[in-house]
Amino acid sequence: MDGINRGRKRAVRSVEENYDLIAGADLLHRTLDRCIAFKKRPEPGYSHGPDENARLKRMYVGHAPVRGCSFEELEHEIGRVLDNSFNFSSPNFMGFPDAGNGVAALSGALVEAFAQQNLNNSTFSARAATFVEVATVCWLRRLAQFPEMAEMKSVLDVGGVAVTGGTMANLYGILMARKRFDPTVAKDGLRHDKKAKILIPGGLTHYSVVGAAAVSGLGSNAVIPVPTRDFRYDPKELDRVLRNCTASDEYPICVVINAGDSRTLSVEKIDSVIDLVKEHAPDAWIHIDACHGGQLLFSKERRSRLHGIERADSISLDPHKVLSVPYNCSYFLVRNPSEFVGFWTSSTLVMDDPWSLGQLTPGIGSKSFASLKLYLQIKKLGLDGMASLVDRRCKLAEQFFHQVDADSAFETLLSTPDINSVPFVYVGCAGSTLSPDEVSEINRVIYGRMSEIGKFYFHGFPLKNDSRKFGSEPQDKIFCLRFMSGNPEITPQMLEEGLEHIKKIGREVTGVSNRYYAESLDNHHCEEAQRS
Amino acid sequence: MDGINRGRKRAVRSVEENYDLIAGADLLHRTLDRCIAFKKRPEPGYSHGPDENARLKRMYVGHAPVRGCSFEELEHEIGRVLDNSFNFSSPNFMGFPDAGNGVAALSGALVEAFAQQNLNNSTFSARAATFVEVATVCWLRRLAQFPEMAEMKSVLDVGGVAVTGGTMANLYGILMARKRFDPTVAKDGLRHDKKAKILIPGGLTHYSVVGAAAVSGLGSNAVIPVPTRDFRYDPKELDRVLRNCTASDEYPICVVINAGDSRTLSVEKIDSVIDLVKEHAPDAWIHIDACHGGQLLFSKERRSRLHGIERADSISLDPHKVLSVPYNCSYFLVRNPSEFVGFWTSSTLVMDDPWSLGQLTPGIGSKSFASLKLYLQIKKLGLDGMASLVDRRCKLAEQFFHQVDADSAFETLLSTPDINSVPFVYVGCAGSTLSPDEVSEINRVIYGRMSEIGKFYFHGFPLKNDSRKFGSEPQDKIFCLRFMSGNPEITPQMLEEGLEHIKKIGREVTGVSNRYYAESLDNHHCEEAQRS
Repeated sequence: MDGINRGRKRAVRSVEENYDLIAGADLLHRTLDRCIAFKKRPEPGYSHGPDENARLKRMYVGHAPVRGCSFEELEHEIGRVLDNSFNFSSPNFMGFPDAGNGVAALSGALVEAFAQQNLNNSTFSARAATFVEVATVCWLRRLAQFPEMAEMKSVLDVGGVAVTGGTMANLYGILMARKRFDPTVAKDGLRHDKKAKILIPGGLTHYSVVGAAAVSGLGSNAVIPVPTRDFRYDPKELDRVLRNCTASDEYPICVVINAGDSRTLSVEKIDSVIDLVKEHAPDAWIHIDACHGGQLLFSKERRSRLHGIERADSISLDPHKVLSVPYNCSYFLVRNPSEFVGFWTSSTLVMDDPWSLGQLTPGIGSKSFASLKLYLQIKKLGLDGMASLVDRRCKLAEQFFHQVDADSAFETLLSTPDINSVPFVYVGCAGSTLSPDEVSEINRVIYGRMSEIGKFYFHGFPLKNDSRKFGSEPQDKIFCLRFMSGNPEITPQMLEEGLEHIKKIGREVTGVSNRYYAESLDNHHCEEAQRS
Repeated sequence: MDGINRGRKRAVRSVEENYDLIAGADLLHRTLDRCIAFKKRPEPGYSHGPDENARLKRMYVGHAPVRGCSFEELEHEIGRVLDNSFNFSSPNFMGFPDAGNGVAALSGALVEAFAQQNLNNSTFSARAATFVEVATVCWLRRLAQFPEMAEMKSVLDVGGVAVTGGTMANLYGILMARKRFDPTVAKDGLRHDKKAKILIPGGLTHYSVVGAAAVSGLGSNAVIPVPTRDFRYDPKELDRVLRNCTASDEYPICVVINAGDSRTLSVEKIDSVIDLVKEHAPDAWIHIDACHGGQLLFSKERRSRLHGIERADSISLDPHKVLSVPYNCSYFLVRNPSEFVGFWTSSTLVMDDPWSLGQLTPGIGSKSFASLKLYLQIKKLGLDGMASLVDRRCKLAEQFFHQVDADSAFETLLSTPDINSVPFVYVGCAGSTLSPDEVSEINRVIYGRMSEIGKFYFHGFPLKNDSRKFGSEPQDKIFCLRFMSGNPEITPQMLEEGLEHIKKIGREVTGVSNRYYAESLDNHHCEEAQRS
């Protein structure tokens, strides 16, 4: 037998083996165990030295293998991937919205992958899946107090759909606004006889909204960033911008409201903003980005923070960021289900079916059974348990906030956390005498050092200085650290240890290397400095 | 203890239990076993009577539970979902592109769900994941013979990215074309000083392309469907349309080429179409939808059918439709990586990182570790095994084609299958004397009956009559049945049994109820009729 034939036979055997689910079951079960063990690792897996990316690039990027490998070798490969991954479930990982850790949701992810349903069609590729998704949409609509549908005869009566992410849901919001403004746009394309504008809380809206303006053909210049205060629209400024628009030939086709911006998770005063919009631009589409804030829909104690959400035209929700559901699982809801008529395209190949959820989803073709993750999570916990899940993370954030607030080495950048994000800065003993640039430099250095050490993780990024601390101007940005409590493995003890860790780094950084800080220190009596 | 407190305590316990991955491991392992058992079921799970959707709606749609449930009850729920799902892995399921059955790919899906990496950022949410995805892009680029990058310093040197689906990849193609035509469109919005047109093979392009035109603001009327022949561009017509465009003030900003349309999987004569486009519209963006045809990149025997693909500006690929990889896993490649500059938006929250793959992905925010499924599949099989995987399904389709072609009770609608789709119709003994309407009615009835019986599944849909059979005009459509060989459980024996099943239904249908057919029968001696 010559080499080519031998190679071909080996390849055929390899394909047979890879299709043998009974023989492969061992690998799959062991992989599952590895995944669980990965999530239980104490370390955040965060060791990001300056050469880390170069190392990983060398490790992974190269030619594809010509010959295959055994399942044992594949397991080794999987182990190596996990060894070089971030573990959002480490008790020391406090910087990301969610760890996707619900067992019920994870079991849904298994079924999603294996059942391979495609919700584009209910007659040959998704039976239960179609109605499981419809059920979750109905549950979310009810929580948002959107009108209940008497009888649903097709997907056009459902009023919402699962999507791949909050970014997609926000794109849908903009596309809906564009359609209301210009009903024939999907066919005829954009006409610029009027200037369509999208109002956002400046510097606080998720990047996807500006991106959506670009994708939609309106252009990012169509976005008007309205000045803010305390991480919400400044009502006077919003009023001014709305008046300016109507006085000129511009029309605010959409006003975006944050129920939890992605940095501070501050929730807008929804009702009063909608009142203002209705007064000046009654036809403007009101889109609420509740990707983070949507979790409060489940909380009895905190639901009132979303008062007015039921007046929105559309809402983005992100269970995969806030309800312990793994990627991907997001939703787009519209108050009036018939807005979906003509929203997307059609196909006699797959969508010639009243229950094709694919009729509702621009940019998404094959539509996986992502909603099962949320469905099973809610079945497992019930609404009572979901409330408890949300309240628990909010309480943990409140606890962290109070610890930071009570510690003179730190300064908080929120007056109070609305949900579960706590942006803060280390100031040592310099307190509020530091300038925005000084605070930023110190905390940027701390962030870098924390990353090198790799023991704890808090997020770090520039934050619009809406809290007006450090004698700053509205346009200043402050590089801050951020605690988030979406990882259920975080314990109160870890809050203490995490803060101590930052203080230790802070003392090293400020005591030794920071010129701004050294000057500040001269003028202060400081316990922190003495300890360093 | 009062009822409310009791309820609250129960809810807290329920949340604790759902977060306990060690206690939950049993459920997860049992769910995995259930999933494997589901895929090994002999039945396609296809029993779609007229009241099926009403039944499922009643089963699933209702109020969310207030109280949670035990893991045992959750397992029951999971079992019920699987009992009411289509099984693409049944040996009798022959109508869908893929069953997503690769063990290596499925193990990747497990890691994707549990590791919860987010490739939007390489410094705190995706380490290995970032470079695994880059590796897969490089492999695919090399197979497509796109230029190899000497050194990659950031994602802007990579030249491709994993996306959520082929629909998204096709949207990217249109957005790239729009950007080339109007470089400031992302900022300034669309200007209509020239009329931008998108050329497609009429009636054959995936619905997502027309949808993309609508989303982009160009409008679906910007799409020019060019007449086709034999499921490809009619070169004379393409030439005429291109000349007409340049003679008027219209500009073909994009020409879409199918490497495997979604119905017949016919592969365009890529090289000659590109020659024609370059002659008349050298700046037009050439986008190749290779969601189905991309699998041929791996085949040594069939790779030549894609000759010219390396001249495309961009390519859509769908491993989750053609490489036994479960949802979601698709790719968008551009020949010149720097085309990604300015393609999407930025964010200091997550994308302030040269290795943020999120810089390349409009409409996608949090970016899951979907590429691991393809990575592990290629590692397991090697390029040799991947070739074998693809050739195997192509051979099975060829075998089916010859069986259908040799059987006078059927008529094929392709001259030869380019990949693994075989559209065909039952004609009994009436042969080609039937009119397009008659053939359509017979096969539509057969499709409905097959669905009711639920034993076998072939896809059924109206097909543009490019084969010019049944004395038809180009504008006629024929409702046909379709065999696809993407499910690895299909055996040669099942091909026989499936065809016998259709013939049996066909004889019942035509012998008893069909008026067109009854007339045709009068004029024919027919073995089929005698048997019925």
